[in-house]
Amino acid sequence: MPVISLLTDFGLKDGNVGVMKGVIWRICPEAQIADLSHLISPQNIAEAALVLFRAMPYFPPFSVHVAVVDPGVGTARRPMAARIGDQYYVGPDNGTLTLCLARAERLGQPVTCIHLNQPQYWLEDVSHVFHGRDIFAPVAGHLAAGVQLEALGVSFSDPVLLPLPRPERTPLGWRGEIIHIDHFGNASSNLRIEDLPEVLKHKDKVTIRVGGLEIHGLVNTFGERRPGETVALFGSTGNLLVCVVNGSAAARLNLKVGDPLEILLP
Amino acid sequence: MPVISLLTDFGLKDGNVGVMKGVIWRICPEAQIADLSHLISPQNIAEAALVLFRAMPYFPPFSVHVAVVDPGVGTARRPMAARIGDQYYVGPDNGTLTLCLARAERLGQPVTCIHLNQPQYWLEDVSHVFHGRDIFAPVAGHLAAGVQLEALGVSFSDPVLLPLPRPERTPLGWRGEIIHIDHFGNASSNLRIEDLPEVLKHKDKVTIRVGGLEIHGLVNTFGERRPGETVALFGSTGNLLVCVVNGSAAARLNLKVGDPLEILLP
Amino acid sequence: MPVISLLTDFGLKDGNVGVMKGVIWRICPEAQIADLSHLISPQNIAEAALVLFRAMPYFPPFSVHVAVVDPGVGTARRPMAARIGDQYYVGPDNGTLTLCLARAERLGQPVTCIHLNQPQYWLEDVSHVFHGRDIFAPVAGHLAAGVQLEALGVSFSDPVLLPLPRPERTPLGWRGEIIHIDHFGNASSNLRIEDLPEVLKHKDKVTIRVGGLEIHGLVNTFGERRPGETVALFGSTGNLLVCVVNGSAAARLNLKVGDPLEILLP
Repeated sequence: MPVISLLTDFGLKDGNVGVMKGVIWRICPEAQIADLSHLISPQNIAEAALVLFRAMPYFPPFSVHVAVVDPGVGTARRPMAARIGDQYYVGPDNGTLTLCLARAERLGQPVTCIHLNQPQYWLEDVSHVFHGRDIFAPVAGHLAAGVQLEALGVSFSDPVLLPLPRPERTPLGWRGEIIHIDHFGNASSNLRIEDLPEVLKHKDKVTIRVGGLEIHGLVNTFGERRPGETVALFGSTGNLLVCVVNGSAAARLNLKVGDPLEILLP
Repeated sequence: MPVISLLTDFGLKDGNVGVMKGVIWRICPEAQIADLSHLISPQNIAEAALVLFRAMPYFPPFSVHVAVVDPGVGTARRPMAARIGDQYYVGPDNGTLTLCLARAERLGQPVTCIHLNQPQYWLEDVSHVFHGRDIFAPVAGHLAAGVQLEALGVSFSDPVLLPLPRPERTPLGWRGEIIHIDHFGNASSNLRIEDLPEVLKHKDKVTIRVGGLEIHGLVNTFGERRPGETVALFGSTGNLLVCVVNGSAAARLNLKVGDPLEILLP
Repeated sequence: MPVISLLTDFGLKDGNVGVMKGVIWRICPEAQIADLSHLISPQNIAEAALVLFRAMPYFPPFSVHVAVVDPGVGTARRPMAARIGDQYYVGPDNGTLTLCLARAERLGQPVTCIHLNQPQYWLEDVSHVFHGRDIFAPVAGHLAAGVQLEALGVSFSDPVLLPLPRPERTPLGWRGEIIHIDHFGNASSNLRIEDLPEVLKHKDKVTIRVGGLEIHGLVNTFGERRPGETVALFGSTGNLLVCVVNGSAAARLNLKVGDPLEILLP
């Protein structure tokens, strides 16, 4: 059965997500639909990009990911669909795909971007303010039902990309920044395991500087330290995390997205 | 595959929504189930009525909408099911259908209301406080599985209706009120596009008075103005909205449901 | 179609629940998946145990319940699966099953516990911090797809059990405690209908002492009293509840989990 995921900043109160599912099931009644998140901070495309990047590799081949964090709805920004490896994306061309496209380039996955311009695959009436319902949900339904990506519009090769904060080499190690605070208050950084081979070799001897604190050594998992201790570790998708065991690092260290984080090599 | 939507004020913490899905799948294992909202303000029937009204037209034919905002659970209020056009409703007879019934009358859709009184379609033990699980979920499952509406009880013709705040003609234009604040802080009014043909003719020249502010002209979509500007526009279901571009009109103008809103014609 | 439920403390913001669904559908594409709750208080195993206990009896035979409230992830705590009557559990061996196992014993349901140790049923790469995605979701998918429980690991007979607060007999009646505050602010206690036959015989004459208040008599449902009144009643799963009609008992009486509650017999 075809799988569709939904990722928006619509919240869970107003019924808009449910409406998108109704629209999809009118076109593809057997679609399995997973909510990725509807609590993306309003208009925060970078946050949506990160959630999509982490989720996509775990979905079945030919899944369709609909992401609608869309401050430009109704303006000239392109509605798009894409194939990245064996996964599909449907949503605005506004940078939501930035991290997935960077990974595709790294892994040599083929990418096709399509500017949606075939209204026969949309709802008959398209509003100015809810393209999630009127364009993206029906396009996802048609993709899941077997319509070819190339039938939905014309290809293009310059998708919008967000500027990505890159970690920097410093005399003593690396400097990155906090890119996400999760539900538990764990702070995730842009320092990734594959870029830091020398950190892996000296796990016990590195020092992490963040929020005015120094953390000595990395752990493998929370349970190695006592509740309440602040720890640093590589998370389940390879980013360096700062956590408080059974607590909130964001609250303890007053961390927010964009705050700097440093690794000092021994 | 049959489609069921769920709309409650149960919240998402306690497992009650999941339990309703378990009950439905025992009866109709192939039902597709969409959550419309479970964050309706406690006991706020009017809010549920609005969410249901907006969602229903987008669902596949023969979808079953279960709405349980039910302050009268366990009292003499009737449990009911209904067919409105090609959609089904299951829930308490307490006004949740008010807007859908008004639209059905406007569109000439046929309506049948049934007082549920056939306990063979309910769970064996019916509690006094959770009819969502014990009566409405199983009835929805049976409807989705093909049981005829008329088998579920006896028809009646006087469903409970909420009083609806109607917009008023004024010497200078129209006066309505705020009926919903959405997740983004957009404020939706009871002034609807089909009632305001003269506004559409003079979009650039009307003035909106709301929350102590005057907004000059209507826009088509958010992106026509800069982030932070307050705008008025017709939303995706035809209601006049007041919004702050990439912000919250409710917070900016301190708006709440019931606040007045005026359109002044040129 | 096989049914799976998900119960976690992951929240709804970060995409982790959606990722688990992607993993499940790669293995069992036709699984119906219900969210029980993802708003369990962080690391609160007792709360998860209660939500699971209430939900399990309402699911179809052979449903698989995945519960991941897992402060010990990555440590020596056992990953497990179990069959309890005709229902399956997958998650950490940390007490989440306590109430379900106590009920199984009371009802004479057969129980089998399996220590998961067959990595061919897991994802290829298992992280230290997200076994919900890497172990429990794939195991649930395999169970739903028809793999035998016994193939997943070796049986064991000493699952971790939480200490359960037991109600005490007092000279004047019974003393229990608040074990859950729900979305509405209703406070649920560990005093259960089957243990209190003498209370049922004198519903009008018992007195409930809680939060500095005395409530005289039990009602059957909220609607028997006026909005704003504090009432006591047996809830839909048999626990004694304290509620404010159309309001929040937790807010009114400043109640929290662990607070005492007494029934005085006449």
